Amino acid sequence: MLGTGPAPGVRRLRPEPPEELPSQENLLLAAAYVSDAQYNRNVPFQTSPRAVRLYGLYNHRATQAATYFFICVNLSLALFEEPALFPLPFWATSAAEVLCLTAFFGRLVHFAKVTPQKVFWKDTKNICIMVTIALTLIDLIIYGSLEAAHIHSIRWSRALRPVFLINFPESRQIRRAFRSIRNTLPDILYVLLLFLFSVLMFSLMALKLFGDRGLKTAEGTPYFTNLLEITFELYVLVTTANSPDVMMPAYNSQWWYALFFVAYLVVNTYIFMSVFLAVVYNNYRKHLKNEIRKLACLKRHKMVEAFHLLKVKVGPESVVTEAVWKRLARAVAPGISSSHLELLLRISDEGQKGHVDKTNFLRLADLLNIEVVTVNIRRHPLEAWVPRVYQSSASLLVQRMVRHRIFVWVYDVIILINAVFIALDERNPFISHAEWLFLSLYVLEILLKLYTHEPRAYFGRKQFWNWFDTLIIIAALVAMVANATIQSARKYKSQQILDIVLILRILRLLRVIVSIQRFRVIVTTLINIGPTMIMFGGLIFVVYYAFAVVGMELFHDKVRFFDPNFTAPAALVCGNPALAGSAFARDRYCRNNFNDLASALVVLTELTVVNQWHVIAGGFALVTHQAAKLYFILFHVVVVILIINIFVAFILEAFFVAYSLEKSEIETAIEKKIQELGVGIPEEDEQDGQLTDVDTMEGGLGRGDGDSRRAAWKGLYCRIASKKYRTVDTLLQRMFESEIAPDDEGPSLDEILNFSPSDMYPKNPNFENSA
Amino acid sequence: MLGTGPAPGVRRLRPEPPEELPSQENLLLAAAYVSDAQYNRNVPFQTSPRAVRLYGLYNHRATQAATYFFICVNLSLALFEEPALFPLPFWATSAAEVLCLTAFFGRLVHFAKVTPQKVFWKDTKNICIMVTIALTLIDLIIYGSLEAAHIHSIRWSRALRPVFLINFPESRQIRRAFRSIRNTLPDILYVLLLFLFSVLMFSLMALKLFGDRGLKTAEGTPYFTNLLEITFELYVLVTTANSPDVMMPAYNSQWWYALFFVAYLVVNTYIFMSVFLAVVYNNYRKHLKNEIRKLACLKRHKMVEAFHLLKVKVGPESVVTEAVWKRLARAVAPGISSSHLELLLRISDEGQKGHVDKTNFLRLADLLNIEVVTVNIRRHPLEAWVPRVYQSSASLLVQRMVRHRIFVWVYDVIILINAVFIALDERNPFISHAEWLFLSLYVLEILLKLYTHEPRAYFGRKQFWNWFDTLIIIAALVAMVANATIQSARKYKSQQILDIVLILRILRLLRVIVSIQRFRVIVTTLINIGPTMIMFGGLIFVVYYAFAVVGMELFHDKVRFFDPNFTAPAALVCGNPALAGSAFARDRYCRNNFNDLASALVVLTELTVVNQWHVIAGGFALVTHQAAKLYFILFHVVVVILIINIFVAFILEAFFVAYSLEKSEIETAIEKKIQELGVGIPEEDEQDGQLTDVDTMEGGLGRGDGDSRRAAWKGLYCRIASKKYRTVDTLLQRMFESEIAPDDEGPSLDEILNFSPSDMYPKNPNFENSA
Repeated sequence: MLGTGPAPGVRRLRPEPPEELPSQENLLLAAAYVSDAQYNRNVPFQTSPRAVRLYGLYNHRATQAATYFFICVNLSLALFEEPALFPLPFWATSAAEVLCLTAFFGRLVHFAKVTPQKVFWKDTKNICIMVTIALTLIDLIIYGSLEAAHIHSIRWSRALRPVFLINFPESRQIRRAFRSIRNTLPDILYVLLLFLFSVLMFSLMALKLFGDRGLKTAEGTPYFTNLLEITFELYVLVTTANSPDVMMPAYNSQWWYALFFVAYLVVNTYIFMSVFLAVVYNNYRKHLKNEIRKLACLKRHKMVEAFHLLKVKVGPESVVTEAVWKRLARAVAPGISSSHLELLLRISDEGQKGHVDKTNFLRLADLLNIEVVTVNIRRHPLEAWVPRVYQSSASLLVQRMVRHRIFVWVYDVIILINAVFIALDERNPFISHAEWLFLSLYVLEILLKLYTHEPRAYFGRKQFWNWFDTLIIIAALVAMVANATIQSARKYKSQQILDIVLILRILRLLRVIVSIQRFRVIVTTLINIGPTMIMFGGLIFVVYYAFAVVGMELFHDKVRFFDPNFTAPAALVCGNPALAGSAFARDRYCRNNFNDLASALVVLTELTVVNQWHVIAGGFALVTHQAAKLYFILFHVVVVILIINIFVAFILEAFFVAYSLEKSEIETAIEKKIQELGVGIPEEDEQDGQLTDVDTMEGGLGRGDGDSRRAAWKGLYCRIASKKYRTVDTLLQRMFESEIAPDDEGPSLDEILNFSPSDMYPKNPNFENSA
Repeated sequence: MLGTGPAPGVRRLRPEPPEELPSQENLLLAAAYVSDAQYNRNVPFQTSPRAVRLYGLYNHRATQAATYFFICVNLSLALFEEPALFPLPFWATSAAEVLCLTAFFGRLVHFAKVTPQKVFWKDTKNICIMVTIALTLIDLIIYGSLEAAHIHSIRWSRALRPVFLINFPESRQIRRAFRSIRNTLPDILYVLLLFLFSVLMFSLMALKLFGDRGLKTAEGTPYFTNLLEITFELYVLVTTANSPDVMMPAYNSQWWYALFFVAYLVVNTYIFMSVFLAVVYNNYRKHLKNEIRKLACLKRHKMVEAFHLLKVKVGPESVVTEAVWKRLARAVAPGISSSHLELLLRISDEGQKGHVDKTNFLRLADLLNIEVVTVNIRRHPLEAWVPRVYQSSASLLVQRMVRHRIFVWVYDVIILINAVFIALDERNPFISHAEWLFLSLYVLEILLKLYTHEPRAYFGRKQFWNWFDTLIIIAALVAMVANATIQSARKYKSQQILDIVLILRILRLLRVIVSIQRFRVIVTTLINIGPTMIMFGGLIFVVYYAFAVVGMELFHDKVRFFDPNFTAPAALVCGNPALAGSAFARDRYCRNNFNDLASALVVLTELTVVNQWHVIAGGFALVTHQAAKLYFILFHVVVVILIINIFVAFILEAFFVAYSLEKSEIETAIEKKIQELGVGIPEEDEQDGQLTDVDTMEGGLGRGDGDSRRAAWKGLYCRIASKKYRTVDTLLQRMFESEIAPDDEGPSLDEILNFSPSDMYPKNPNFENSA
């Protein structure tokens, strides 16, 4: 990770802040600092006004989206290149690739204009991208010219494509996961060596114990006679994929030979695999803490820089005037509503003195990050239009009914009955008609709820389940109507539409979860860690992509897939006579091949799941060479031993943080302030209802300002919404920030960048933090 | 867990300690307290002299060993009862069982005489044992009389036998693991329900998506047409045992059907299984901390009781006189050597004032637990007998050579060459003769080392690897000689002896590990957590035993094993026509049956490893009823989801504690004191040598006292040996004790007993302790 703030040489050039209003340039620079602090960006940028403006453009959503678009295009080229899922001519894919490379190069030039020269050339990320662009171009030229001469060669640079995804500054999370892996390597290497030593020892023992017995496997081949084969078999046993088959011949011959395998499993599968998890987890946690400490210090550092740019002297202390503060906040969050801004100012300007002191100024980034939720004081539209009808006793009864708990229960029962109907055979006309009944009941439910609750509140940004319900029902309605239309018009069932209808119908059952409080807690935790899980998806995708490209070069068209009903001899051996009699052919794994990107990714998923991976590895070894097994072993070590363990470590950490906070809430200074102002809603008020009429008032909602200005100050109630949407990172960061003294400027930039995980260890561990 | 110390009513009867010497009764009572504190026993006992003496007998090694002996006999009866591995008549096994029950009852009566009546009848452990004894007797009588009338019935009480192992006070660790499981259940139940709900949802979706497609599995059976079967198949997929076979038919038909299975695996296998681990681990850690806090407080409480019994007033403060302190220490540790006692007194009586103050007295239990190692100042016996020869320049050269690092390397190379020879074919006469050469080289090594190092130091108690070396070599020597003798005498190779020779030969290779520092660290950690792993072995054994007994009743003789070379039709279907064409018969799993205890335990091990468990479950379902699958699913939930996760949690915790202490050593007051006295050895001095001539001087070594008295005080160097032999429990307990103020009497007994894990949460979690 690289530093932030002005480079040391540049800082000296900063003009002394004037005692009167700060210049527009300083305001923009301060806004850039605050925005970086808000989003935890750590890009060092030049402080000249032009660079700051370019930096704003660099961080703009449109340019970021364009970058990601080109990364996606570049990665998806593998679908169209030989071996292709959708073949395109070479000139088309290479033109697309050159376009992508140009875009990446443009992005890099943009970045070079923003960041100081020295920093730019020191950053390995940038060097990496440049080298990859150059290598890809060279490869394209060589391949193109050879292709023109009709010589077939290998497009080796394709495995480098994920480099672009990893190295763009926005992929911080993926890079952190990779750093975790790299940092874990030295520790894990010794465990791995010891583990391999143990496997070898057991292999030798197995060779000596079972090799001369003349035992046969279930297939009739000799059992445990070749050391190399035994080592592979026992490595597979660590993954449990060939248990108990590998043991059966020995066990059939003498029952106490089973003890050998039990000892092997206890030592290698249970103990060593747990040690791997422990080592990976320990390193992950150590480095996570260190990085988050770095982030917290950098954030403080940026806020202090911003303060120094804008401060004016009022009496003995330096402060930022209210007007400047407001302009800054509007510059950082252009869409912020007036009432929201007013609330933040009330919180920041404690004594209503007309200026914000340093301690409160440093909180601005946090204040902007906090989602403030207002209690909706708007009336239902129907109440405005037809007040007489809406307030009639019948209408009120309906509303009370809908708000009642029994209403939820009734619909839960309806969903369960629907589940039973789905499980039953739907060729029965009665049951297929019942589906229409259920659908209309669900539509009625949504209409009733919209009648009772204010529609804009019902479809508030955080009302995940309401959106979920409505979208599912509308989609099901559309799909069913479409299906019925097609069916009656053409006397033919569209299978695809039917599949969608079926899946939607079953997804609807998910709503039962929402009614049960304990389930909702687990699901909410899972949804909260969702974003980081998607980061893991990115990490896994990067590794998969590289392995898939290599696998496609090594194994494509060695194994072919025929229609399963086709029983020609070639189909039974997947089109390759070398597979005759192999477990690969017997289990009909012909579709598990590397003939296109989609198939390769599916095979890699199966290898990640581990079961039967030795059959797949054995099959590809038969059609190429025994050394091909190394590819599969390498994949196992990288993905299953390293990455899956990091994934487990991450989930454990996320749950521990969530658990430890459920018991004692951190009340940061900001939350206390909202309470002090008396505009907070007690947490309990909304325990029961996922339907409390609340609405976010964070900027960028696009609501008319006039509307929210009408929401008078007196009627505004605020609540911190962040508790619901917390991730491990933000929680850890908040904890760490709460330990920095409010007016502490923190360590210097150089110190921050040289933080190392070993500093983190307390000199005298105590009971709480060591276990 | 139950309390300790006198019951509230009894305490009042304690006589006020006299100002002069305490009575013999008080001394014994205090010794009982200190001994309990030393071994962390928490049995509440009466304070009358008779009860204290009985309590001493109760804790005596002989009575404890006898109890364990009877528990083993009782458990091993399953080997001899029908279905038996070694059949014995019913009268023999039932007589043995009655004998065991009598012994258990006797132990219980003994305990009842020691503990106060009220406490005894409140303790569920005792009630459990009594009920189990009664039930077993009833079952024996019913079964015996039915058997006499030739009616076959079920010995259901056999599944209760592990109750005795769990409920005797010595099995604290196993009970704690069970409590962990019980405490985890409420939390895990909701996750389990949500998980089952998710499996059901996916099953419904699979039924609708694939049920009508007319797809066939690789065996040609219809694919995904029955909801119950789909649910089972998908549950098996969570355990990954049938991946990718379960997916292949759908994947063969449409490639994007694979996405359904990928989604299923991500949600259920990866996310839910990690959540299970997180929930189990979180609970384990929480309860572990709470119990250890309890233990630490109870220990302090007992030491305070002992102090009050023995204190005398000297000036303003209460102290224990030196003479009383020595008598107490000798009463607690009868085998303690004089010099060891003298050292402990020097540490306890800081100013050499002739008495021990309260703070120092409270440390006595810890002092006695610390293993003190003295530097051996004895000379080599040869030096005493033939000093001229031993001190000659040739002899000194040999000694320097043996101590040199290159000597170790040379032998490492020899071991590696030996490994290559082992891997080669041994029918070659040259190679089989080389084995004698290697063996003599190893013997030479041991002799040389014994020549250089003092033999008693070489075979010191903690010199694990020296013992290991010597025993392996001697055993190999004996076995090879025995084998050669038998071979030349009878012209026949004894297979068993040959097997042993082979295994010993390969175990020798383990010594290479010792030479590499990084490997030694990992192995030492693993050896340190060994005792607790054996506790886990006990836990798993208890569960296995219960499942095995139930399985034997349900499935015995349903499947029979024939010699693998026997190809009669019955042998191919394991003697049961219901298995014809099943995967169970095709994979030749006939030996995986429940026909005796050993076979049943092997099957349960295979089920724990998970792979192919659905084949085994399917086989036994075919020969009995589909509901038999519930037995296997229950086993999976209990053993794999609960117990294996607790095992993983334990290994993680053990490694984290080990890691966090490697960076910063806790120097307790005692360790500092040894340093202050100047009798400590710096830790670094023995980093390189596993052969430093040290020897423990802890009590009970059986060395003559005269010998150690000759070791003058000036020549005595001490070192805390505990660092090498630390467990999670002791480390955690030491950490927690270091947080109790040295003169704090701690919370009251009632408070201690009502500690709950939720008290442990700090009110304001900070960065260090929350993540």
